[in-house]
Amino acid sequence: MDTIQSIGYPIYFNDSINQLVKFVKDGDYSRFFILTDENTAKHCLPLIREKIDNLDNFDIIEINAGEESKDIDFCIGIWKMLIDFGADRQSLMINLGGGVISDLGGFAASTYKRGIDFVHVPTTLLAQVDASVGGKTGIDIDSIKNIIGTFTQPKAVFMEASFLNSLPDRQILSGLAEMLKHGLICDAAFWQQLKSSNLERPSVELIYRSVEIKNDVVIADPKETGIRKALNFGHTVGHAVETYSLIHDNGRHITHGEAIAIGMICEAWLSHKKIGLSEAELKEIVDVISALYPRYLLAEEANGELYALMQKDKKNQKGKINCTLLKQIGQYSIDNVCTEAELCESLRYYATL
Amino acid sequence: MDTIQSIGYPIYFNDSINQLVKFVKDGDYSRFFILTDENTAKHCLPLIREKIDNLDNFDIIEINAGEESKDIDFCIGIWKMLIDFGADRQSLMINLGGGVISDLGGFAASTYKRGIDFVHVPTTLLAQVDASVGGKTGIDIDSIKNIIGTFTQPKAVFMEASFLNSLPDRQILSGLAEMLKHGLICDAAFWQQLKSSNLERPSVELIYRSVEIKNDVVIADPKETGIRKALNFGHTVGHAVETYSLIHDNGRHITHGEAIAIGMICEAWLSHKKIGLSEAELKEIVDVISALYPRYLLAEEANGELYALMQKDKKNQKGKINCTLLKQIGQYSIDNVCTEAELCESLRYYATL
Repeated sequence: MDTIQSIGYPIYFNDSINQLVKFVKDGDYSRFFILTDENTAKHCLPLIREKIDNLDNFDIIEINAGEESKDIDFCIGIWKMLIDFGADRQSLMINLGGGVISDLGGFAASTYKRGIDFVHVPTTLLAQVDASVGGKTGIDIDSIKNIIGTFTQPKAVFMEASFLNSLPDRQILSGLAEMLKHGLICDAAFWQQLKSSNLERPSVELIYRSVEIKNDVVIADPKETGIRKALNFGHTVGHAVETYSLIHDNGRHITHGEAIAIGMICEAWLSHKKIGLSEAELKEIVDVISALYPRYLLAEEANGELYALMQKDKKNQKGKINCTLLKQIGQYSIDNVCTEAELCESLRYYATL
Repeated sequence: MDTIQSIGYPIYFNDSINQLVKFVKDGDYSRFFILTDENTAKHCLPLIREKIDNLDNFDIIEINAGEESKDIDFCIGIWKMLIDFGADRQSLMINLGGGVISDLGGFAASTYKRGIDFVHVPTTLLAQVDASVGGKTGIDIDSIKNIIGTFTQPKAVFMEASFLNSLPDRQILSGLAEMLKHGLICDAAFWQQLKSSNLERPSVELIYRSVEIKNDVVIADPKETGIRKALNFGHTVGHAVETYSLIHDNGRHITHGEAIAIGMICEAWLSHKKIGLSEAELKEIVDVISALYPRYLLAEEANGELYALMQKDKKNQKGKINCTLLKQIGQYSIDNVCTEAELCESLRYYATL
């Protein structure tokens, strides 16, 4: 598969680990740091270590797995480790892990000494099709996702398909939600292709096409001032549900993809009610998603808190909640203002399916 | 005086407060925030408030004056206030104050929701001739200055000469050190002009020329990969002395300019020893600076700690300390590696003057 060119950096799909080792050795870096968590340290890091253990200029920074590690306090911990290790501006950060690692490591790197280079080696499907491409970095404060961050592009992304083999099914499904979204917003043929594929283990060709779609969108609008908002389909409601679950479902919260799946159902319903998505396509979307993802109990009493969370969404303007909706499958529509009544009605629609 | 054009933004010198009010009213901002400290809240804010009090979409964020407020903990406080105020991406941050306000406010704004607009209204001479121009934002961790930050340009800078009237002489001298530096590195004629001027209250024409010099350098190299390092003359030693004083001289530490004055003497001596700055010019620099700035006691026992601080300097590469020196007055030279022995000898030179 061809290397995909993003905003000034390559996304490698072939022979990725060797490409990474070559990148590190050829780069004029004083030293490099591998940011990892206990899962990727166990399952993925060995594959890299065996090829770089003859190098003496690297250190490993390991954090706990999980969204909780994206809090500013952990970011400060990484900054202090870089200071203690004496990291200079010619240092490189290698983010080996899922979206938490790439978002957090990207932010820490993009602000350390006003910015050092970083690359992503995504180890989850979600990180491969979403977090690793597009130049968004971010951390959380008080459980508000990505409230602090930068737009900074990595120097390269290395996609290693074999890393996905050790992932639990639930993690695959989490990434799949973003792939479904890419079809729904931009490419009806891809959506149809996904529908007729084995989605429990998406092929590398499907992953490649998904990255292509996302990459085309972010190249057209790196800083999310316009059409990049297309990628927010499912995320206004989905982010609120995800944060709600992080707060309330202690230790057994839903995944990003499970939350986005709920968000896509709610926002498909809003698309039908507000901008003419056909009833047949609404049903098609609901059927596909419902067959893949578990039900999540959304009690009526939660709606007030969910709406309050939606009000903190970064895409909002002047206090109004802006949704990305679908005119039809494969065709997005940005900047649709939705009222509290409409959004709560969409939550009820999901709850009564 | 003409408006100076920097990297995509104007620097106003005429009728600046009215220009600021016009900027706020004409901009499509959902709301704006004025970041200030107790000094500028008292001396400068009233001049702005009387012109905007008919607007209802602003809030004031007041912090304590002083470098201590640049710590990450205070930055988190500002982020949380923006969250609590419901600041969206169409918000504007107005940094009304000295370098602490512009560095801290610029960093908080450049990372809040991945970046909101900000402008600077510098109220000290140091901020006018240094911090407000060049797009550097930064905060401190563990007293390490600007260890975390971004390169992000403001949308405009508003220079109001009358704000300087209420400044104590010591604050004027602090900014003057950067003006002297601008002459020393780039413009021998400007250095001569400064020597023959009333430097207790530099004229607005001198300030304007100083900003022009700095602006020319940063336009040529926004991200400090090359010639912008010219601006670091006096800062390798100076930053170390400043941090040392912040740590040890509790409550009565020296100013940035006083530290840079010491740094310029040390680095002028290094310039003489290493790259041929003439003895006559070294003496001229030492005489001018010594006549303006108070002596600071640098005991021999402090040298180890000062050197350790220099090793944390952002300009270092691969563990080597890089100084910007002078070939002659008006002509800088970047990337001069200095050894521990040389740097400690330069500190001794200062101590025995």
